[in-house]
Amino acid sequence: MLHVKTPEEVLALIEEEFDFAGQPELVQLSAALGRTLAEDIAAEEYVPDFDRSTVDGYAVRAKDTFGCTDAIPAILPLQGEVLMGEGAEFALNPEECVAVPTGGAVPKGADSVVMIEYTEDYGDGTIGVSKSAAPGQNMIFRGDDVYPGKVILKKGRVLSSQDIGALAAIGRVEVPVVKKLTVGVISTGDELVEPSEKPSAGQVRDVNSPMLQAMLTGFGANVINYGIVIDDEALLSEKVHKAVAECDAVLLSGGSSVGVKDAACRIIESMGSLLLHGIAIKPGKPTILGKTGQKPLVGLPGHPVAAYFITKLFILPLLARLSGKQLESYSVPARITESVSANHGRAQVHCCRLERRAGELWATPIRGKSGLITTLAGADGYFVIDRDCEGLPQGAEIQVYTGE
Amino acid sequence: MLHVKTPEEVLALIEEEFDFAGQPELVQLSAALGRTLAEDIAAEEYVPDFDRSTVDGYAVRAKDTFGCTDAIPAILPLQGEVLMGEGAEFALNPEECVAVPTGGAVPKGADSVVMIEYTEDYGDGTIGVSKSAAPGQNMIFRGDDVYPGKVILKKGRVLSSQDIGALAAIGRVEVPVVKKLTVGVISTGDELVEPSEKPSAGQVRDVNSPMLQAMLTGFGANVINYGIVIDDEALLSEKVHKAVAECDAVLLSGGSSVGVKDAACRIIESMGSLLLHGIAIKPGKPTILGKTGQKPLVGLPGHPVAAYFITKLFILPLLARLSGKQLESYSVPARITESVSANHGRAQVHCCRLERRAGELWATPIRGKSGLITTLAGADGYFVIDRDCEGLPQGAEIQVYTGE
Repeated sequence: MLHVKTPEEVLALIEEEFDFAGQPELVQLSAALGRTLAEDIAAEEYVPDFDRSTVDGYAVRAKDTFGCTDAIPAILPLQGEVLMGEGAEFALNPEECVAVPTGGAVPKGADSVVMIEYTEDYGDGTIGVSKSAAPGQNMIFRGDDVYPGKVILKKGRVLSSQDIGALAAIGRVEVPVVKKLTVGVISTGDELVEPSEKPSAGQVRDVNSPMLQAMLTGFGANVINYGIVIDDEALLSEKVHKAVAECDAVLLSGGSSVGVKDAACRIIESMGSLLLHGIAIKPGKPTILGKTGQKPLVGLPGHPVAAYFITKLFILPLLARLSGKQLESYSVPARITESVSANHGRAQVHCCRLERRAGELWATPIRGKSGLITTLAGADGYFVIDRDCEGLPQGAEIQVYTGE
Repeated sequence: MLHVKTPEEVLALIEEEFDFAGQPELVQLSAALGRTLAEDIAAEEYVPDFDRSTVDGYAVRAKDTFGCTDAIPAILPLQGEVLMGEGAEFALNPEECVAVPTGGAVPKGADSVVMIEYTEDYGDGTIGVSKSAAPGQNMIFRGDDVYPGKVILKKGRVLSSQDIGALAAIGRVEVPVVKKLTVGVISTGDELVEPSEKPSAGQVRDVNSPMLQAMLTGFGANVINYGIVIDDEALLSEKVHKAVAECDAVLLSGGSSVGVKDAACRIIESMGSLLLHGIAIKPGKPTILGKTGQKPLVGLPGHPVAAYFITKLFILPLLARLSGKQLESYSVPARITESVSANHGRAQVHCCRLERRAGELWATPIRGKSGLITTLAGADGYFVIDRDCEGLPQGAEIQVYTGE
């Protein structure tokens, strides 16, 4: 007999029962944004591969400029010029200088660059330097950025645009990432019609399939939508078997009625094991989770709001676990505009809208009866009321999770 | 003569000089995630279109149950059953009850539903109700969710997966969104080679093009990468003209040297007007912004870190303005693990890594010389030090911006 579990217990169960099951693949750098690194990335060469100036100016030996001032500049013969994109073919002669552009190569023998602002070209082949340079000044040395073997990004990292830049810098134009998971979505219920259809009496449109498809796509999974299955255990079982064969994870949603829930449980048990029957959270209690082999099989609540939160709070973390993805969510502090009551004993999740008032963030809970999809529309985030909390007074500080 | 502007002045300039220039298009619901709504979305029908039960139970007239208890249940003849997905074809007779499943239609005449847990089926065609119902209990009424004309999502909204669910609920399977902007990216510099190439002496790989492409793709723009142009004003001008003809906005990057900057300025002035020459921010000062017609032409700094921040802080907001997109970024509070010095007089931006310590978020600035791309790699976010601030002590609270 499975008991209702707390959210913390469910997350622990997921850690315990599921493990990394990802496969690596190589993708082009231009397609790597948002993908999960399959291995640590180490540089294979020096970046930059030469000593580089960070300013327009003159490469010098610092000691040749020591003590110079506006009044008594150091006068250094101009030995030559380094052109952008070309190596410094010659070494700097002592007590001379070489013109270098920003990003240009600094010749051997030079240990610093004097900015052009602190120099004067006398026009007779000599340059006056009016500010003494410190060794290393205005230079990036070979390998300052990276050197062979330096790990610049770690396995599990979800690649950001900055990371793409760093990969370009070290010449990694093919990136080892974790293959996208394929997740199957099945909606059940005699009352459901496709969103494109006009519901007849007693019917409603299938909200969960398109919503879950969007959530899973946003997460970075491939989605196979198996459409709507009527309340028929044999048909449902057939569809679930097909989905399990084709996918890495399968989400069943709908089936608000007891009969369908029971059917889903029997199907999961016949294919593997049932791990969870009920989460102490509102909305979302009637959630079931099982596995067949290493593949999760989830029975989500039929109410779209409940299906949304269960997916957000438990299923995406589960998929992150399967695909080795470091899923981080940061919350922002806000004050609540209205008091909210809570069910003692069950964590409670609310969608909210956010607005700024005098530099502070205020959250307004979106209210509505259970099952109303419009309590989701236009939300800027959500917050959780702990199961030990009996409610929040107006003005209380809460933590709001924003973003997809 | 254009003076260096503060970040606030730059954002105000963008508001003043640029306006919504988006075009609407219809996309399928399955492709609408992350797109920007081109108009308010109002429902055209009632959702649900019938009175609906939120529990498995019996539809009753509440007053027929008043006063009943466990000891003295109200005994109501079972008039019939409503099946899932079918309308209630009959009206409830007074002092009788009708079985309804969760989500099923409630027959006319009934004003509440008693949960099955509070009833007993005597098996003789009557049902005992042991808890009195309040009118409206356990029901969603026709139009409770939405009614014709009710605006559920506003123009400018960036569609989330919840919004996709709400659109499905009202049958909006084609969604009016703002056409994606097309943004051209050009890198300049004699020292640049493609990321796939091995740099020779004095050369470095082009980091900005792939990084900007990723940032712009993540923002939701189409990107045309015009590749690397060498430092030649005629060639650069030709490429910029081509890009302006094909794109809604053009970003030139690179050209750390004074010559290229001047060339970019001349090209922009010849095609329209130069609006900005320098931002009081570190890194990122050498930024230029102009427009030709309503199209922005941007000269980004060559240093990847500077190009990243200028794009993040000013160019994405500019593109959001052009496409009517409500761009929201929320910051998370964190404490800084090390002191950071700052240049009085110039706002300063730093990448950082985040970690949790005893429930608190701590930010470690990623240090490195200007121009090192690895100060971007692996960052979890960034923070800004105000221009009036002379530095931050260890442990100071900062606001960190996370996410793409």
